[in-house]
Amino acid sequence: MHDRRLSRCPQGLCRCALLILALLVSGPLWAAKVKLDASEWGHPAGADCVSCHTKASAGLTQQWHESAHQKAGVNCMDCHRADRSEPDAREHEGQVIATIVSPKDCGRCHTQEYEEQQGSVHAEAHALIEERVPALAHNFTGAAMQAAGCDQCHGSRVKVRGDGTLDPATWPNSGIGRINPDGSKGSCSACHGRHRFSKAQAREPEACVRCHAGPDSPDKEIFEASKHGMIYVAERDRMNLGADEWVAGRDYTAAPTCVTCHMGAAGKLPATHDVGLRNAWSLNSPVSERQMLVILEDGAKLELPSSAPQPKRGSEIAKADGNLGKVKAVATPDRRRQAMNLVCQECHGKAFTEAFMKQFDSVVELFNTKFAIPAKAIMGELYQRGLLTSTPFDEPIELTYWELWHDEGARARHGASMASPNHAWWEGMYLVGRNFYGRFLPEARTLAGDQVAEVVEAHLQGEGHQWLVDPNQASTILGFAKPEPAAPGTEMPADAREAQ
Amino acid sequence: MHDRRLSRCPQGLCRCALLILALLVSGPLWAAKVKLDASEWGHPAGADCVSCHTKASAGLTQQWHESAHQKAGVNCMDCHRADRSEPDAREHEGQVIATIVSPKDCGRCHTQEYEEQQGSVHAEAHALIEERVPALAHNFTGAAMQAAGCDQCHGSRVKVRGDGTLDPATWPNSGIGRINPDGSKGSCSACHGRHRFSKAQAREPEACVRCHAGPDSPDKEIFEASKHGMIYVAERDRMNLGADEWVAGRDYTAAPTCVTCHMGAAGKLPATHDVGLRNAWSLNSPVSERQMLVILEDGAKLELPSSAPQPKRGSEIAKADGNLGKVKAVATPDRRRQAMNLVCQECHGKAFTEAFMKQFDSVVELFNTKFAIPAKAIMGELYQRGLLTSTPFDEPIELTYWELWHDEGARARHGASMASPNHAWWEGMYLVGRNFYGRFLPEARTLAGDQVAEVVEAHLQGEGHQWLVDPNQASTILGFAKPEPAAPGTEMPADAREAQ
Amino acid sequence: MHDRRLSRCPQGLCRCALLILALLVSGPLWAAKVKLDASEWGHPAGADCVSCHTKASAGLTQQWHESAHQKAGVNCMDCHRADRSEPDAREHEGQVIATIVSPKDCGRCHTQEYEEQQGSVHAEAHALIEERVPALAHNFTGAAMQAAGCDQCHGSRVKVRGDGTLDPATWPNSGIGRINPDGSKGSCSACHGRHRFSKAQAREPEACVRCHAGPDSPDKEIFEASKHGMIYVAERDRMNLGADEWVAGRDYTAAPTCVTCHMGAAGKLPATHDVGLRNAWSLNSPVSERQMLVILEDGAKLELPSSAPQPKRGSEIAKADGNLGKVKAVATPDRRRQAMNLVCQECHGKAFTEAFMKQFDSVVELFNTKFAIPAKAIMGELYQRGLLTSTPFDEPIELTYWELWHDEGARARHGASMASPNHAWWEGMYLVGRNFYGRFLPEARTLAGDQVAEVVEAHLQGEGHQWLVDPNQASTILGFAKPEPAAPGTEMPADAREAQ
Repeated sequence: MHDRRLSRCPQGLCRCALLILALLVSGPLWAAKVKLDASEWGHPAGADCVSCHTKASAGLTQQWHESAHQKAGVNCMDCHRADRSEPDAREHEGQVIATIVSPKDCGRCHTQEYEEQQGSVHAEAHALIEERVPALAHNFTGAAMQAAGCDQCHGSRVKVRGDGTLDPATWPNSGIGRINPDGSKGSCSACHGRHRFSKAQAREPEACVRCHAGPDSPDKEIFEASKHGMIYVAERDRMNLGADEWVAGRDYTAAPTCVTCHMGAAGKLPATHDVGLRNAWSLNSPVSERQMLVILEDGAKLELPSSAPQPKRGSEIAKADGNLGKVKAVATPDRRRQAMNLVCQECHGKAFTEAFMKQFDSVVELFNTKFAIPAKAIMGELYQRGLLTSTPFDEPIELTYWELWHDEGARARHGASMASPNHAWWEGMYLVGRNFYGRFLPEARTLAGDQVAEVVEAHLQGEGHQWLVDPNQASTILGFAKPEPAAPGTEMPADAREAQ
Repeated sequence: MHDRRLSRCPQGLCRCALLILALLVSGPLWAAKVKLDASEWGHPAGADCVSCHTKASAGLTQQWHESAHQKAGVNCMDCHRADRSEPDAREHEGQVIATIVSPKDCGRCHTQEYEEQQGSVHAEAHALIEERVPALAHNFTGAAMQAAGCDQCHGSRVKVRGDGTLDPATWPNSGIGRINPDGSKGSCSACHGRHRFSKAQAREPEACVRCHAGPDSPDKEIFEASKHGMIYVAERDRMNLGADEWVAGRDYTAAPTCVTCHMGAAGKLPATHDVGLRNAWSLNSPVSERQMLVILEDGAKLELPSSAPQPKRGSEIAKADGNLGKVKAVATPDRRRQAMNLVCQECHGKAFTEAFMKQFDSVVELFNTKFAIPAKAIMGELYQRGLLTSTPFDEPIELTYWELWHDEGARARHGASMASPNHAWWEGMYLVGRNFYGRFLPEARTLAGDQVAEVVEAHLQGEGHQWLVDPNQASTILGFAKPEPAAPGTEMPADAREAQ
Repeated sequence: MHDRRLSRCPQGLCRCALLILALLVSGPLWAAKVKLDASEWGHPAGADCVSCHTKASAGLTQQWHESAHQKAGVNCMDCHRADRSEPDAREHEGQVIATIVSPKDCGRCHTQEYEEQQGSVHAEAHALIEERVPALAHNFTGAAMQAAGCDQCHGSRVKVRGDGTLDPATWPNSGIGRINPDGSKGSCSACHGRHRFSKAQAREPEACVRCHAGPDSPDKEIFEASKHGMIYVAERDRMNLGADEWVAGRDYTAAPTCVTCHMGAAGKLPATHDVGLRNAWSLNSPVSERQMLVILEDGAKLELPSSAPQPKRGSEIAKADGNLGKVKAVATPDRRRQAMNLVCQECHGKAFTEAFMKQFDSVVELFNTKFAIPAKAIMGELYQRGLLTSTPFDEPIELTYWELWHDEGARARHGASMASPNHAWWEGMYLVGRNFYGRFLPEARTLAGDQVAEVVEAHLQGEGHQWLVDPNQASTILGFAKPEPAAPGTEMPADAREAQ
């Protein structure tokens, strides 16, 4: 099936094709049932664990007592048992166990979720920053920040010490891209908190906030400030969070949570543990790109900018680790967007959904055109001409540029994507403008010296910067209607009355 | 009744007069009952809408199924039906409908709420910024930010395209001051989320957070950090949020929400959908003013600074749109304050309430006297002498001044008004001082050049700035008791022990 | 019992010793039962109060009606009655009452809680800053900010006016270290909101947020962004918050709240109203110190840095107020840590707990070594050489230094202590590095002038600053793999794909 043609096909056909792809990728409408036979669990030593840990760590044990695992007869040993050959296997009270229960371990029963997560951008969270961490965390501060900071969300490369215990420099963390001793990636307990591993808890917006909050990805704050978030709080008891099947528009309709849009089943769209599947844009990059998702025969996935040539089905392509994989399917940005729109349309009309997405796309394109592309080009010039060292963050403009796209620019783009006007504007694009005009350009001009025309000004020819040319655009916004100060006590009513 | 006299009258009389005014303005103690006969709704085509949209947008339909509207027999067509003459009327499956259900539409049944909202500062949210938006959003960033930013809270001027559909540059948004195709202002669904339109949901603090959060009006953050907010969270299930009548002190007493103080019935004080009625101060202006509310015969309202001459009853006055209106009543700042105090006094003593208000007023007056009035005068000098262009935000000091009153100053004033010490101080006045001494004055002095004495220093004669004169005021606050550094390991116990 | 020996003893013995100390200090596992006879309350005038205040402040009265006090027959007069000799006693409707009900008043029945709170760091919250407030709040802004800002959390020194009423410049506030007219410290209603005084409410994380939020102690934000906070929200209805006895690991196991770790009973560890008891580090000081808690015979307590000589039992030591006290016991930092660990170990294994604490300690030590100690030494040099006046905050570097440890440094340390990677890193140490290299050092170098080698550079010899020496450490973190700009459209897939 050729994508080019599809993207021009009538809506009905497209949706159909999309569903085929989606079903192919994901399977049933909701989380898969465990297919193992119950005889495969219920380790005989489990009762001894519980008996002792009821005293040694009563809370932990009680959490398990309240879990679906306990009800199904899955005990401590079923998850923590290990083979002696595993790098982190150790003896404990006569049993061979591992402290870390990895996604691979969970995948013994929860196979589909394991496979979806392993192919997702979540699983790559450590790999993506491994090369970059020293340049920021180590240099700027110190290695201790990697363990307490970066690794807590991105995950560490867990190091087992000679005595079989885990190195505190790399553990504990439940980072979603953690490289476990068994080679699997991430941690299911990142979202499904130990030791209840509750579905309901992972469906809460709060399940995501530990990592998706703060300056560079204020998704917690954005959701809370959105209509979705405001209704969610009021209607939480109508959310049916503990339901076995949880299909938006059928099992709940009050409001979406993070899971609803990014992972959940909605109408005919199946659920998935591949959290990035429905994202048409890269939003945390210096310049946003519409992105293709390339699915390989071996289950691996690859994101490619839509500006790259689209790989053909059956062709071979290099994976992040350098190995080749055979292309099974390609989801174009349009298709990914359509998947997301299917979620929206459970509660919003088609015109509403499309107009909203147009507003969002316009913000991303504005960021790219007016700020991101010029800033990137200017930085490129500065590096190329030797006006900056190749060590990141030893010159102030490198922090300025970093915050422009990684913090302020990310907030603007995320804010628009999830409908928080405060984050799109005041905590987003307003600050992008402030940074670009107030810090980035002055610093770049100083560095450029007599090369300023080529290094800086050549990249500012867009019409977005033309407003600076006319100095006579009076406005009441600062409280001054004209170049004279208002006399005391004669402030304009409109001003005194300013809203919110 | 003459206000001058009233403001000196004994407390009892004043309260009485206030209640008269309040009842006159607002009516019953709680939201008005719908007075229409049920025969006026229940459009025959409604069942068809539901039948089809149960498939096309299942969540939306289900929300309606759970609404009071459904219970009362109010269906899709009762709200969405339109006359062919309406600008946004369009045919849809054999019916003439409009996508936007405006306050005027809602007002067919909810007449009193409609009238109160149309006369409120909320309804003016778009009008107030329409002239100002280009100077900031468009220039600094781009027009895309108006749709995804400003308009989402303030509302857009909705534009209907030739084919009857709505222009994505102006819709969707549920801005509280949106200029609808039918000329009415705002959107009821700003607070009463579609399509359940729940009373309980709109009484939650979260109903306001989409717009009242962030750097310039962190009311969400302030409420959460106040005693009110902290008790609200703990006692939410005692809040009786779904009650038909919801009078503070009678139907609930655990804690107030935003609605309680700004709109809700409390004791004998009636409810109102005019959200600004009880606000004695303008808090989001460059300099705060105590403000009169002028109520006109045609239902329109007008805010005037208390420094302006008080309009006489029956006199004519120019409205924001230039037309004249006849004055029906004037609520002085003192009366408005008294209305607010009535809410407080349901749970606090009179001495407590008045001392709290004194603390709040002192913060506003400090901001005015020490920072806002001097800063405004300095900016006025700079404009008048041609040391700044009339284009806002093309010089750094214009952003500095903007943030001084619009962000930091607003936080300080709002924080004091709603009792969050963190916002009054650390995120408010501390930053005002930091900005004023650390950025605003240095930038102003540089711009003033050899005119610095008249442009800047002449405005800094207040005693608030005298502390800078004496360089020898030692304090332990920075960890140094005297001008010598503490020897390592001999840090003072008091210091090592610093609280929180 | 000699501490030195203990700190080397086997784990079992230590824990035993700790429990002895803890039990000695604190008593039973949960909040103490009131030991007074019921005949000692139920003031005969109480019914009259209720009758009148049901009209005058209906909400307040209703809160009491729903309280445990009402159920037990404790009425308004039982708490508000006063002796004529008390400074704030006044006549009201024929009774002598005081507006403020102080901890001493509450302590008539709740003796143990009163004693624990009076000896805690909470009770010193006003004393600790009294000398420092003028240097910041008054100078920088004005006295009005003390009442609306500082005092609201730290507490004021309450001033009674000639007519027996309370000075609005010092009241209302429920600051936890308020100096009450009767000499007692703090306010029970800081945490137990009036007039229900609910146990359940004070166990909520929200009970602490009014003061423990914001730039210098974002404990609210940190908790919300931690695993603990995320599970708490989901499992709040399993928290058993209203239980009479509330022992972690027994009465609830879902998640901890602030109270759980800092005050609550857990396993065999008793509850305490001394909130700082389990804190091994000072985290809000310029340089963090491990701290000893010295308990005196008279119930007073004193924090000492672990670098100070450890006072002997029975020896005399100067208290904060200058008087001498006899040492009853000393809790070393290790013992205090062990107490905290006992809480953790209700739900986490010992290896997990210890590795977590090691990660936390490493962050504090990194802050000290790389930033705090050099910065303090540099400031000391600047003061000593007369390069700074002794008035704090009249030179920009004093604000820079203040924010380095008081804001950014505090966030980094608190974030690590309570497991919010966002606050440990992005809102913490990342900003510490940014401030130190980008503002503090440049400002210090300018001030130092030709003394820069001794004043500044001499303090930067640590290996943490060596990264600045090599300018050729390329990294892809800024989107540039090498010193050349990437050609448009050829952005690396890894980059386009960057996670969150």
